[in-house]
Amino acid sequence: MTRQLHFNLFLHDTGHHEASWRLPESDPHANLSLEAHQHLTRVAEDAKFDSVFLADSPVLWSDPARRPSGKLEPTLLLAALAASTRRIGLIATASTSYNEPFNLARRFASLDHLSKGRAGWNIVTTAGDAAARNFGLDDQPLHKTRYERADEFLRVSTKLWDSWTDDAVIADKQRGVHALRDRVRAVGHHGEYFRVDGPLDVPRSPQGYPLLVQAGSSENGKEFAAKWAEAVFVAQPTLAESQAFYADLKRRAVAAGRNPDQVVILPGIVPVVGDTAAQARELDAELERLIAPEHAIGTLATVLGVDAERLKLDEPLPIDLPAEEEIEGHKSRRTLIVDWARRDNLTVRQLIGKLGGGRGHRTFTGTPVQVADTIQEYFENGAADGFNIMPAVLPSGIEAFAAKVVPILQERGLFRTEYTGTTLREHYGLPRPANSLELASR
Amino acid sequence: MTRQLHFNLFLHDTGHHEASWRLPESDPHANLSLEAHQHLTRVAEDAKFDSVFLADSPVLWSDPARRPSGKLEPTLLLAALAASTRRIGLIATASTSYNEPFNLARRFASLDHLSKGRAGWNIVTTAGDAAARNFGLDDQPLHKTRYERADEFLRVSTKLWDSWTDDAVIADKQRGVHALRDRVRAVGHHGEYFRVDGPLDVPRSPQGYPLLVQAGSSENGKEFAAKWAEAVFVAQPTLAESQAFYADLKRRAVAAGRNPDQVVILPGIVPVVGDTAAQARELDAELERLIAPEHAIGTLATVLGVDAERLKLDEPLPIDLPAEEEIEGHKSRRTLIVDWARRDNLTVRQLIGKLGGGRGHRTFTGTPVQVADTIQEYFENGAADGFNIMPAVLPSGIEAFAAKVVPILQERGLFRTEYTGTTLREHYGLPRPANSLELASR
Repeated sequence: MTRQLHFNLFLHDTGHHEASWRLPESDPHANLSLEAHQHLTRVAEDAKFDSVFLADSPVLWSDPARRPSGKLEPTLLLAALAASTRRIGLIATASTSYNEPFNLARRFASLDHLSKGRAGWNIVTTAGDAAARNFGLDDQPLHKTRYERADEFLRVSTKLWDSWTDDAVIADKQRGVHALRDRVRAVGHHGEYFRVDGPLDVPRSPQGYPLLVQAGSSENGKEFAAKWAEAVFVAQPTLAESQAFYADLKRRAVAAGRNPDQVVILPGIVPVVGDTAAQARELDAELERLIAPEHAIGTLATVLGVDAERLKLDEPLPIDLPAEEEIEGHKSRRTLIVDWARRDNLTVRQLIGKLGGGRGHRTFTGTPVQVADTIQEYFENGAADGFNIMPAVLPSGIEAFAAKVVPILQERGLFRTEYTGTTLREHYGLPRPANSLELASR
Repeated sequence: MTRQLHFNLFLHDTGHHEASWRLPESDPHANLSLEAHQHLTRVAEDAKFDSVFLADSPVLWSDPARRPSGKLEPTLLLAALAASTRRIGLIATASTSYNEPFNLARRFASLDHLSKGRAGWNIVTTAGDAAARNFGLDDQPLHKTRYERADEFLRVSTKLWDSWTDDAVIADKQRGVHALRDRVRAVGHHGEYFRVDGPLDVPRSPQGYPLLVQAGSSENGKEFAAKWAEAVFVAQPTLAESQAFYADLKRRAVAAGRNPDQVVILPGIVPVVGDTAAQARELDAELERLIAPEHAIGTLATVLGVDAERLKLDEPLPIDLPAEEEIEGHKSRRTLIVDWARRDNLTVRQLIGKLGGGRGHRTFTGTPVQVADTIQEYFENGAADGFNIMPAVLPSGIEAFAAKVVPILQERGLFRTEYTGTTLREHYGLPRPANSLELASR
């Protein structure tokens, strides 16, 4: 079969542009609305997208004055969406730093059962001291420590998901035996961060494991992705940088003993689709005008690890910013932003304008054919296996992409016209993992 | 308005009788089926029940050979059910011993938003060493310690639910102000078990707090209920014992400075409804025949805190059982079982027969009129404000109760014929809590 694109819709209430909620047509309460999320997910499902995705951090993560900052917990929201959809995959972000493996493993196994094999987990280590202070800590654990814990968290979780063999439940009414006792086993994990006896209280789920997704591009993040991730979200501003990232991560996967085709790389893009190129540019400009730069400065300062007072709107970034090695969170985001500002010689105000739209992701602005061409260019030139679609404005941005761009790609044979599988792993062409306990006992 | 009954359906896949999955008509995979739970919930909603409820413990809690022991995590399953229903309340059990307040508070606030005000939390401290060993401990914390932690957990959670005032979100597109900064506040909790900065990442939910439910009947449990619970599930085998419990708990609520009408007491009952009394008794007997007593002995031994070998099927319970004070979990369940066995002079086999059906709850066996009469008797004689309905077999048990018993109670004016409110609190006649932060700042 010809290699085909994969599409994920990054759900974000009224859109990824921070001013999108202020547009006349936007529902400023969409962040807490099941119906708004049902609509977005159905549009993506009708367009045969592989999945939808929700970001997360267990903290109030932006100034509540500036934009809708309240959110629905992702595993619950996706469980509700599982009941409202049939085929599309459902990827929730959850933190390995602020959860216990038993609790999270059972939630993802439950989501996989509820959705009949459509669950995915975007694994994050959660940057920031504010989150740490919701969990009894003074400061966040070191970046390296967070990744060590994440690695052990995955080792525990996969053991728990494997603690029932696939054939454990026999449901023999006559003999009165529901599951075979020797096919349900304790995991007895005793590690540095966790001790977990098990077994899990959820039988092995349709996909075996949820799809494992990762998004950090720091050195630790890329090593973690090479070892564990089956799909990777990434932010790269140019084709060349996307190609470099793509080649590097596939190489790392091979070095980790894996098949590089089983690591699906999905750059984030912000499609801005107009019937004419001029119309698309006009929409872009309208959004930039809506940003209140004084609100955005605080967020930028946090990512860069400097005091907000040091950033002047009409000057370039300060020269003596902390290096990537000196900050403990958002490492790759920080470097991407700094490199971008310096390369294009942007003032802080101009930088905020760019970030408000794409937050470091590439904006594809143009007519449907132009956007489809750029997607094809990335896909056929070693920069992407598909895309994480992050419309600046929702639902209109995904409606336009689904109605105008997707049919062009389908016509070119680059995207499915119907689902061929039923699980999220099948959509992405990824195998169902064998049961490690089962293999060990053969 | 006349005082009316409240009904909760205790969801339990093929029924509360441990052999129910073996009946020819039972789906032995119902425990992991969204559709099976959707059907049960819709039957209860069509009958105008106040709520459905899911038990939980973060552990594989029964021998997987004996009955369906895998389960779907309750907050996720109820989120999926929120998307499939409109009016009925959704009560999930969750542990204060094996969760962090920030994580759980945001899940219940999210469920309340998703369901438009229909979330309830059955607060448990989780008995048993097996659960503790899924969370890095060797043994469960002491009963008293678990309740101290639960109390602080509730103090943190209510502060988090109050960390946004009800009027915080103004969504002023013109000025670009989504929420008022001074109406979203850190909680700064520094206690013995938890330090939590806050604010919550979820704005105040439709009900303010989820309905707070409790079910333990130990001394610590009853004190906790008197302080926090708005609805209480209880197991009492006779009318007299239900009356004593009812009077005692209402008295404790008054002593805690609360309005006793705002603590709704719901004894668990197992209705066995036949068109004739003989038919009802026949169904009862058929289920008892299906139990494999050798499987049930282990569970009974665990609750009693003795080795399984000490229990002989055709002898009474040993005389020298550990006292309630000597065991660290299931205290009230243990005492109820021991008292019952001694009072009725039961052998272990007979006791297992009784427990397999009602697990210590009262079985109401008879014709629809007989069952309705008993319900009315309890309700009008200081033993109950309503009932936690635990059919031995599902879905048939709730279908029969809804079709045959509910209409009799409606005709007598004892139960609603239509929902009058939209939230779970409104169904139970309970107030929406005022915002403590808001009150403090006036």
